[in-house]
Amino acid sequence: MDLKENKNDLEIEDVFKTETNFRSLYGLTPEVENAISISIENNNKQELVKLISPLHPADQADMLERLTGEELVTAISLLGKALDPEVLVYLDQNVQEKVIDIIGPRALARAIPVLHSDDAVDILQELEEEERKVVIKQLPKADRILVEEALSFPEESAGRLMQREFLAFPSNWTVGQTIDHMRAKPQEEEDSFYSIYVVDPAHRLLGVISLSKLLSAKRPVRLKDLMATSPRSVNVQTDQEEVALLFQQYGLVDMPVIDNINRLLGVIIVDDIVDVINEEAEEDLQGLTGVSDLSISSSFIETVKGRFSWLILNMLTAILASSVIGLFQEEIEKLVALAVLMPIVASMGGNAGTQTVTVAVRALATRQLNYTNLQKFVLKETWVGLLNGLLFALLSALLAYLWFDDELIAIIMGLAMVANLLFAGILGTLIPLTLEKFKIDPAISSSVFLTTATDVIGFFTFLGLSAIVIL
Amino acid sequence: MDLKENKNDLEIEDVFKTETNFRSLYGLTPEVENAISISIENNNKQELVKLISPLHPADQADMLERLTGEELVTAISLLGKALDPEVLVYLDQNVQEKVIDIIGPRALARAIPVLHSDDAVDILQELEEEERKVVIKQLPKADRILVEEALSFPEESAGRLMQREFLAFPSNWTVGQTIDHMRAKPQEEEDSFYSIYVVDPAHRLLGVISLSKLLSAKRPVRLKDLMATSPRSVNVQTDQEEVALLFQQYGLVDMPVIDNINRLLGVIIVDDIVDVINEEAEEDLQGLTGVSDLSISSSFIETVKGRFSWLILNMLTAILASSVIGLFQEEIEKLVALAVLMPIVASMGGNAGTQTVTVAVRALATRQLNYTNLQKFVLKETWVGLLNGLLFALLSALLAYLWFDDELIAIIMGLAMVANLLFAGILGTLIPLTLEKFKIDPAISSSVFLTTATDVIGFFTFLGLSAIVIL
Repeated sequence: MDLKENKNDLEIEDVFKTETNFRSLYGLTPEVENAISISIENNNKQELVKLISPLHPADQADMLERLTGEELVTAISLLGKALDPEVLVYLDQNVQEKVIDIIGPRALARAIPVLHSDDAVDILQELEEEERKVVIKQLPKADRILVEEALSFPEESAGRLMQREFLAFPSNWTVGQTIDHMRAKPQEEEDSFYSIYVVDPAHRLLGVISLSKLLSAKRPVRLKDLMATSPRSVNVQTDQEEVALLFQQYGLVDMPVIDNINRLLGVIIVDDIVDVINEEAEEDLQGLTGVSDLSISSSFIETVKGRFSWLILNMLTAILASSVIGLFQEEIEKLVALAVLMPIVASMGGNAGTQTVTVAVRALATRQLNYTNLQKFVLKETWVGLLNGLLFALLSALLAYLWFDDELIAIIMGLAMVANLLFAGILGTLIPLTLEKFKIDPAISSSVFLTTATDVIGFFTFLGLSAIVIL
Repeated sequence: MDLKENKNDLEIEDVFKTETNFRSLYGLTPEVENAISISIENNNKQELVKLISPLHPADQADMLERLTGEELVTAISLLGKALDPEVLVYLDQNVQEKVIDIIGPRALARAIPVLHSDDAVDILQELEEEERKVVIKQLPKADRILVEEALSFPEESAGRLMQREFLAFPSNWTVGQTIDHMRAKPQEEEDSFYSIYVVDPAHRLLGVISLSKLLSAKRPVRLKDLMATSPRSVNVQTDQEEVALLFQQYGLVDMPVIDNINRLLGVIIVDDIVDVINEEAEEDLQGLTGVSDLSISSSFIETVKGRFSWLILNMLTAILASSVIGLFQEEIEKLVALAVLMPIVASMGGNAGTQTVTVAVRALATRQLNYTNLQKFVLKETWVGLLNGLLFALLSALLAYLWFDDELIAIIMGLAMVANLLFAGILGTLIPLTLEKFKIDPAISSSVFLTTATDVIGFFTFLGLSAIVIL
């Protein structure tokens, strides 16, 4: 197969070319992308800046992600100070690191104060300890204090997600006073916000008013009479996954973040939560399918390494399963049909178990599975395993009989199948639940344990029964 | 293993009991849940209403989802008209169907007009054709027209997601005029919105103004001087997946929906997009792990059926792989080590291929993979497959040699491993890309094709080489 055969590639490309509806909504069209590539190739700074600066920072980031290492160095040096700091926020972690290496800590320190505080923290927390210190040292004092405080909160907590830019007013202010105050300090276009907060003199959160409500209220109304009291808020230490679940549960657009004595520290906006939701869903996917990094922009070496570590684990479990087969070499020698049929039993168990594990992992991640329905869920999966086990026992027994014309093999095949599918159902629930109990992320390791178990059980029951019954 | 052993269950439950931080943020605490269950058991209508009505509709929906079929019937009849129509919106599809069956089409028709238009459509589109007609017939005329129009848009399109409630003003209005108009018609608390739209007399979209910008502007400023022109908008026919990608790409909170001649039809709010993102991520997960329905509230029969259909497919592919083994029964009889080692080759290929497929499926879904980087991606995965293939060839050859003390088997094992991992890398990219080309969702069927291919190739190369070289 010649991978470079151009005709074939072009055909696959056609798929994307027809999706004009989407592409026209999206700033980085293939035409723009080509033109930018050419300007980089030609070292044409003026042309590059002219093409790239009208794009949304997210599109600029996409463009940079598509460049090779060399092109990236050229592009960043051509852009120089024309590189919008916002672009850093949207870059994939791999490419972000590379760009920061290229621009150096001084330029990064100049870029940080332009960003929202949550975005600044997001970039800084990915740096190496040493590098981070160098950058923070060069920040203006006000930014340095904010950043250092944010970095003192646990990783993946509300404190890292929140932005410190928000508007809070005393409860005895009127709507008119508040609006006049906002008019006196016009906001930047990017600084959209969706609620204002009402606080007491000690800056403790009293209530929240959505902008749509503020706009519809008469000027003399006092904020305390307009605000929703006891608003939904999160403690600054709360894990981001829990914050994301609250946003989803209640369809929120923003949520205030408070400290232990109810002082308002910041606000989390839904766009950062969308990223968290994606991350969490992708983590589940990665764990269940054995990928260490879903990004296609990871370097070749990173990709090989990441895949290798999962494959070596898989190899060890495969060896374990094979050593079970090794115990029954005599039997296989006498009756080679066993070697033909045994992978079917193991494969069915692995698949049925993976189904259950997937449901359990997602249900745990979304908190659909909890202390009240736990027992019900385990029992249901057990019964599903048993019923499907019986159905496939019949089918596989029939298959074995037709193939090898041997009733005993057929019976053994059926028995092994029902045993393996039953265990797959039970273990598919108990493995993730047990991992969760021991605070190990069930998404990451459940499927390795599960398929090892179903392989071992599948081979052992099938070959073991054969050894006892037939031979 | 006794599944009903209570001590063990309690220990697992402890995991959840310690998560007080999350649970205290969440309306439906175990205490409230228990009290509600008791009130249903006792047929105590007054108590049930008192306990359930202070909860957010999303929490009420969670509560209903946790009831058994019988309890649900009792709860719904006890609640009667106290059932908040909003609760329907948050229910899982399975439970939503059941509740609608219980309340009947008349009560549903009374509930629909209370809801936002997008939520109303969301519920109606899930009904059977006949049932839907009955309900729509009983709606007030204004609602009937809106709903029928929305249902005329393709499923999973922007037209189904958008709400028709939005504020649009002429471009020559001033900020003051606009705010006064909004004050004259105060909004409900739930009717939060985040932007107003500027339209021409034919209702064509001219621009967008965020509420934060409107609030910060002086009263005499005209909307046309404040608005962002050529705002990001989507056509009403656009697929929801593309809408979700735009929200993610640009961190949007809302987006106007227009028809083919740029008339403003509605607005999509981010909370509905969060649901779409979750759905799409779960669809990928379902397809890659062979689950037809991730919900743990699916009935026993639905679960068995859904799992069965995937397992039967898996059984067919396992039979295909086994029939390859069947071709080499003679060889296995002579050299039983082959039977012991062959599952390792197949399993490694399957795992390596699944890794690549997962990356490809997610990259296609998130449009990271496109016409420009397609060739690069396929080549990279091929090289990754080759390099890991070589590494595992060495390891597995060593293993085979130590286990069976036979150089020839070791060499064959190594060759088969490198071939299978190389093909896994190539097929792991080409299978999803080819499915995408033929408009088949790569998430759903890639992994079935892939594991079939790696099993067949694994068994065939390993046993075939053995047949040629050794025997």
